[in-house]
Amino acid sequence: MFPRNVFPTTSEVNEAGHLVIGGCDTVDLAAEFGTPLYIFDDATLRGRCRSFVQEFNKRYPNTTVAYASKAYVNPAVAQIFADEGLGLDVVSGGELAVAQAINFPKELVYFHGSNKTAAELEQAVEWKIGRIVIDSFHELGLLEEVAASAGTSQDVLLRVSPSIDPHTHEKTTTGVLDSKFGFAIETGHAAEAVRQAVAAPHLNLKGLHFHLGSPIFELQPYRDGVEVVLEFAASMREEGLDLQEFSPGGGFAIAYTADQNPPTPADYAEAIIGTMTAECDRLGLDLPHLTIEPGRAIAGPAGVALYRVGAVKEIPGVRRYVSVDGGMGDNIRPALYDAAYEAVVANRVNDRGEQVATIAGKYCESGDVLIKDVLLPAIDGSGKDLIAIPASGAYCIPMASNYNLNPKPPIVLVNNGQARLIRRRETFQDQMLLDVA
Amino acid sequence: MFPRNVFPTTSEVNEAGHLVIGGCDTVDLAAEFGTPLYIFDDATLRGRCRSFVQEFNKRYPNTTVAYASKAYVNPAVAQIFADEGLGLDVVSGGELAVAQAINFPKELVYFHGSNKTAAELEQAVEWKIGRIVIDSFHELGLLEEVAASAGTSQDVLLRVSPSIDPHTHEKTTTGVLDSKFGFAIETGHAAEAVRQAVAAPHLNLKGLHFHLGSPIFELQPYRDGVEVVLEFAASMREEGLDLQEFSPGGGFAIAYTADQNPPTPADYAEAIIGTMTAECDRLGLDLPHLTIEPGRAIAGPAGVALYRVGAVKEIPGVRRYVSVDGGMGDNIRPALYDAAYEAVVANRVNDRGEQVATIAGKYCESGDVLIKDVLLPAIDGSGKDLIAIPASGAYCIPMASNYNLNPKPPIVLVNNGQARLIRRRETFQDQMLLDVA
Repeated sequence: MFPRNVFPTTSEVNEAGHLVIGGCDTVDLAAEFGTPLYIFDDATLRGRCRSFVQEFNKRYPNTTVAYASKAYVNPAVAQIFADEGLGLDVVSGGELAVAQAINFPKELVYFHGSNKTAAELEQAVEWKIGRIVIDSFHELGLLEEVAASAGTSQDVLLRVSPSIDPHTHEKTTTGVLDSKFGFAIETGHAAEAVRQAVAAPHLNLKGLHFHLGSPIFELQPYRDGVEVVLEFAASMREEGLDLQEFSPGGGFAIAYTADQNPPTPADYAEAIIGTMTAECDRLGLDLPHLTIEPGRAIAGPAGVALYRVGAVKEIPGVRRYVSVDGGMGDNIRPALYDAAYEAVVANRVNDRGEQVATIAGKYCESGDVLIKDVLLPAIDGSGKDLIAIPASGAYCIPMASNYNLNPKPPIVLVNNGQARLIRRRETFQDQMLLDVA
Repeated sequence: MFPRNVFPTTSEVNEAGHLVIGGCDTVDLAAEFGTPLYIFDDATLRGRCRSFVQEFNKRYPNTTVAYASKAYVNPAVAQIFADEGLGLDVVSGGELAVAQAINFPKELVYFHGSNKTAAELEQAVEWKIGRIVIDSFHELGLLEEVAASAGTSQDVLLRVSPSIDPHTHEKTTTGVLDSKFGFAIETGHAAEAVRQAVAAPHLNLKGLHFHLGSPIFELQPYRDGVEVVLEFAASMREEGLDLQEFSPGGGFAIAYTADQNPPTPADYAEAIIGTMTAECDRLGLDLPHLTIEPGRAIAGPAGVALYRVGAVKEIPGVRRYVSVDGGMGDNIRPALYDAAYEAVVANRVNDRGEQVATIAGKYCESGDVLIKDVLLPAIDGSGKDLIAIPASGAYCIPMASNYNLNPKPPIVLVNNGQARLIRRRETFQDQMLLDVA
């Protein structure tokens, strides 16, 4: 059965039984661009942008939706976000360089991340980006120096940590007390950071940011986080904090498997905005500008990874290994987070599943398994079968390595039957680009 | 206390209290090449090569030591292995391309790996490499076709799986029955593979290979594996198997932490050769050519990662985070395998450890922790301190990503006070090389 809810919105199955995305037959895409191949659906990407923009703005017009680049960014997709009127959340000089490469509206660029270097802060201040989100006292001091040398005043937010557990994977939980991120409210560090930022002559403190982790399938952690941080903001008024901006971060979940049913953008908007307006009212705070930062929730559902099956190995009574031509080099999430995925045989989607298979990659490592148990039609290893893994638009290519010196796969953007290469396949020569003989 | 056993053999502490490797002051290296920086010690790299070559050859002159490229390879280090008379074990077209780039003696190139593609097999057959190690029936058929089209006969080994647990990390255990690698002896697949290979007109079956996993701290799994596979070889004589070559793989362990005391190359040689000669005698097998494949055990101890400290965050009663300018992008092993490491403050190695710290990276993820608890001198976050993490020569750079679009670090090869850049730092522009606007 085709798990429609985890595939891009334009996905369909044509008369030949092939998976079609954005009007493009994936069997043709594999032939034209080779495998492994990442397919991004333009309509889903833009649809997710619009969904967040509309659901938040109709409830609270004073909202900016900033895309979290770390989910995946390159110049072509950054241009799509610019066209859709989104802001851009970056976490490094490298991501900032992508924004610069397409001249992204710089007032809508937010620089997040822990342990930014002096060079990165200089790059941001020099380009005069909208906001730098300060993560530590070290950075606060460094940025004050950088802004002073540049003879400018930098608009900043402070990242505070509300000590709330969002019940996601330990490795992606960021808003608890034991975290490298932000200033903990509980320890008094957040209050001290507000005092220092208010006093810093070249920093202009616009408000507060927090981020709980990702992906968060529950709404209550957002409600709790908004309450805790707004209460902190109210308590800091006498210290000179004027909360003009408020950013409860991102972490919005998507469905990776057919049985998952994450909150919709409307649900997140309702929870965040409802709590924010009620709390501001209760605390006598002016309503701030709201910034939210979806990354995975925009790019994730738009992407599908396409692989060709090679070896099929049946160990009687133990396991059936279906090996594909990619693996942990292009998607390390299963090995790193025990992430689960669905899969279909893209060249015969309607064939009935009759075998439980383990989809393994081509990497020299036992941990290189993309999906441990998935029901698939019988696969014979003739080399004709293609495996499509949906929900692959976020945190796959960004975390890709050249492990085993396998080149990184290309990305095509599909729309209305047209496929546009937005990232070409890496070559063996490219992999030696940095090498000095 | 300086954990000397996990650092390169040339490591010393100079009068200024700085860590010196290969005669180069690491403080100077950081100033010249920037951080994060990977330092490879030429003497340790060659010393480890020679140790394996000598310990095996003095016990059994008919041995080839082939370096397992997946631990780390680039043209400069491949040249060192060629100069030291080693063979080269590759697992992809990309690694093969590195061997081709320096014209590595092709008769000493072994092509391993699961699910090799037709293109990769063509590349190998066309270049006429020494051995292709067949991993599956799919590959056996494919290679016969490729060799037939090329009008040649290809020397091959078969990878068999002896169903032995080497007691290492689940993700790096490869020789058990439930594995994507090789032909299981237990299921009869290995016997069938021998029959097919013997019958294949364009394949010349030279012998058998197995590999148990990595890193293996015990000797008994090698003894057991050698026994099982030689017994299998003896049982296959009547099927036409003439065991001219025998490869019990690699997986040799190194010390990552000061308390680890892995077997020496001599220990491994004694265990493997002792068992092999005794078993061949018992089974009436002619003594085969022996090939062993150390990767980690050669490159691992030669490498040291050097980082600069940025933010230091103290959460009273909870944890002290010392953030460095690299992290899971250049070394994913702690996040992926719970790998443990030592660390020293490279610019003041002799300062007494007085604080337990967590060394975190600059990546936007809580899982980005390089070392969870390590005793360090007090670090104030002034930006002057450098952290050196030893045993970083294997499986760090090869698995490096551009996560958060942080560029990959450079590598310098140090020797006798000279530092030679063998891989330059990636730039923001390099990171956009594949992008199509």
